[in-house]
Amino acid sequence: MSIAGKTAIIGAGLVGIGWAIVFARAGHDVAIYDSVPGAAERALATIAARLDDLAQADLLVDAPSVLSRIRPAATLAEALAGAVYAQESVFERADTKRAVFAEIDRAVGPDTIIGSSSSGIPASIYTDHVACQARCLVVHPVNPPYLIPVVELVPAPWTDRETVVRTRALMEQVGQAPVEMTREAEGFILNRLQGVLLMEAWRLVEEGLATVEDVDRTVADGLGLRWSFMGPFETIDLNAPGGVADYAARLGPLYHRIAASRSEHRVWDAALIEQVEQQRRARLPADSLVPRSAWRDRQLMALARHKRDMVASEESALPADTSGP
Amino acid sequence: MSIAGKTAIIGAGLVGIGWAIVFARAGHDVAIYDSVPGAAERALATIAARLDDLAQADLLVDAPSVLSRIRPAATLAEALAGAVYAQESVFERADTKRAVFAEIDRAVGPDTIIGSSSSGIPASIYTDHVACQARCLVVHPVNPPYLIPVVELVPAPWTDRETVVRTRALMEQVGQAPVEMTREAEGFILNRLQGVLLMEAWRLVEEGLATVEDVDRTVADGLGLRWSFMGPFETIDLNAPGGVADYAARLGPLYHRIAASRSEHRVWDAALIEQVEQQRRARLPADSLVPRSAWRDRQLMALARHKRDMVASEESALPADTSGP
Repeated sequence: MSIAGKTAIIGAGLVGIGWAIVFARAGHDVAIYDSVPGAAERALATIAARLDDLAQADLLVDAPSVLSRIRPAATLAEALAGAVYAQESVFERADTKRAVFAEIDRAVGPDTIIGSSSSGIPASIYTDHVACQARCLVVHPVNPPYLIPVVELVPAPWTDRETVVRTRALMEQVGQAPVEMTREAEGFILNRLQGVLLMEAWRLVEEGLATVEDVDRTVADGLGLRWSFMGPFETIDLNAPGGVADYAARLGPLYHRIAASRSEHRVWDAALIEQVEQQRRARLPADSLVPRSAWRDRQLMALARHKRDMVASEESALPADTSGP
Repeated sequence: MSIAGKTAIIGAGLVGIGWAIVFARAGHDVAIYDSVPGAAERALATIAARLDDLAQADLLVDAPSVLSRIRPAATLAEALAGAVYAQESVFERADTKRAVFAEIDRAVGPDTIIGSSSSGIPASIYTDHVACQARCLVVHPVNPPYLIPVVELVPAPWTDRETVVRTRALMEQVGQAPVEMTREAEGFILNRLQGVLLMEAWRLVEEGLATVEDVDRTVADGLGLRWSFMGPFETIDLNAPGGVADYAARLGPLYHRIAASRSEHRVWDAALIEQVEQQRRARLPADSLVPRSAWRDRQLMALARHKRDMVASEESALPADTSGP
């Protein structure tokens, strides 16, 4: 049945479930393993529900056949047997990951690449003790990875270049958007970018310059519209007649003054958190967090569908002007 | 013909053209004035073309009737006569704006509010000398304002509170998304947020941690997807079971470490600009900047249509489950 080999998912929580969908959707046979007995079987029920959501949102054609490619594995060795790739998605703690990588090391075949879903802990912290370390790296998804394609590849100092190259190709083959760090750095790319924007957002509220709601609106009805289809460099590259260097010459002084106005690096303290929490809870009561998260997922599905259709219409418009409306 | 009063557009460049479309689309009579003879008439031809683009993108129903509401004015006094609101969009230089505000002051009626499109210079720099100063403020759009709704309202120290309140209501009435600063600050909200993200983006490239293309991909296929329909605070509010305060407690240490790793505030220097320029030009040759900008505008139109349809389907889903597919 498989057109693309076998993948092992290690850890059947929310992140592992997302990965199982990504690989099975792309035609991989997926073995899903969790050290808690019964967890992999329970994950399959959640996966079935998610696949139905995707099919109803017109983002998946054949949910039953995708589901049929995912099977629970009774042991780690069974999950890893014959796998071209294994994705570790266990709890985000260094000691937990160290123990799991030691177990993987004992069972894994000589060619399997092992990616870790670690969202912050670099692979050097939990792969220094394993024989397979040249085939280990961070492969960090954004949740849920079947709707948000970016995946961060972060090699440890001992990760083979070939491991990164093969993983990048695999991620592109399964429809993700891989990005690479050349070496480990705190927060990787995505959380570094998100982090600096959040820091300034918290500061604007703390200094009473703007409300939480208006900061959010500035992004959702402003900055975020362009950033949903082109990154910050392409944005400024198109915002000056001569491209990015021209933009830097024109706007440099403004950004230098903005930078100079921030001399400290506090992120948030208790009083500021309380202030933002109050503004958010006034806008969204705590018991609405779950339904609002479901709304977010519907928005992401619609956006994924929209971006897919835009790419398709751009591509069909290229060869000739014969495409439909 | 007008259902919403008269608006004066002062300055018939790209920004003034965008504003004319916003107000006329919302039913305002629009008088457009430029000190360069013939510029207002030429602007009308550009406006007609933009309105056709919007109609073809299914974002405007009756382009001819919108166009019919926009008229060139021969003098500043003619443009301002009877206007409830005037939008100044002249060249971004303090001395130019000072001179224009002095002229406006001599011709403007006693109730007209005057908003400035200034993208960086605060109103206190060029309205300290005019009698109408309590009715002056920055009303900063993002280009083009008929596709990107956010508008930043930034009062000078002498701006009446009533001026801000009335302008916010007017902006909502014409379909924009107003946000307010309580006082002036370099870069306002939007460019402060964009600025810090850009600073980190330039640093990631300078340190060789990631390429320009991968930084862009991290936003366009990752962060920007959520940010196109919800802001940074709502994003993290939904990213921890207990909301934003819970998120701050869980992720605070990571963001503190990221913040601590940046101790300096250089923005960009010549060598770094050259490096990024080379990567961008390798990806997009200089002679493709214009067609790629047209692509960006098509993407923005499609995104505006998509977000409009999503809001409509959410609203129609609220009262009962009787909406179509």
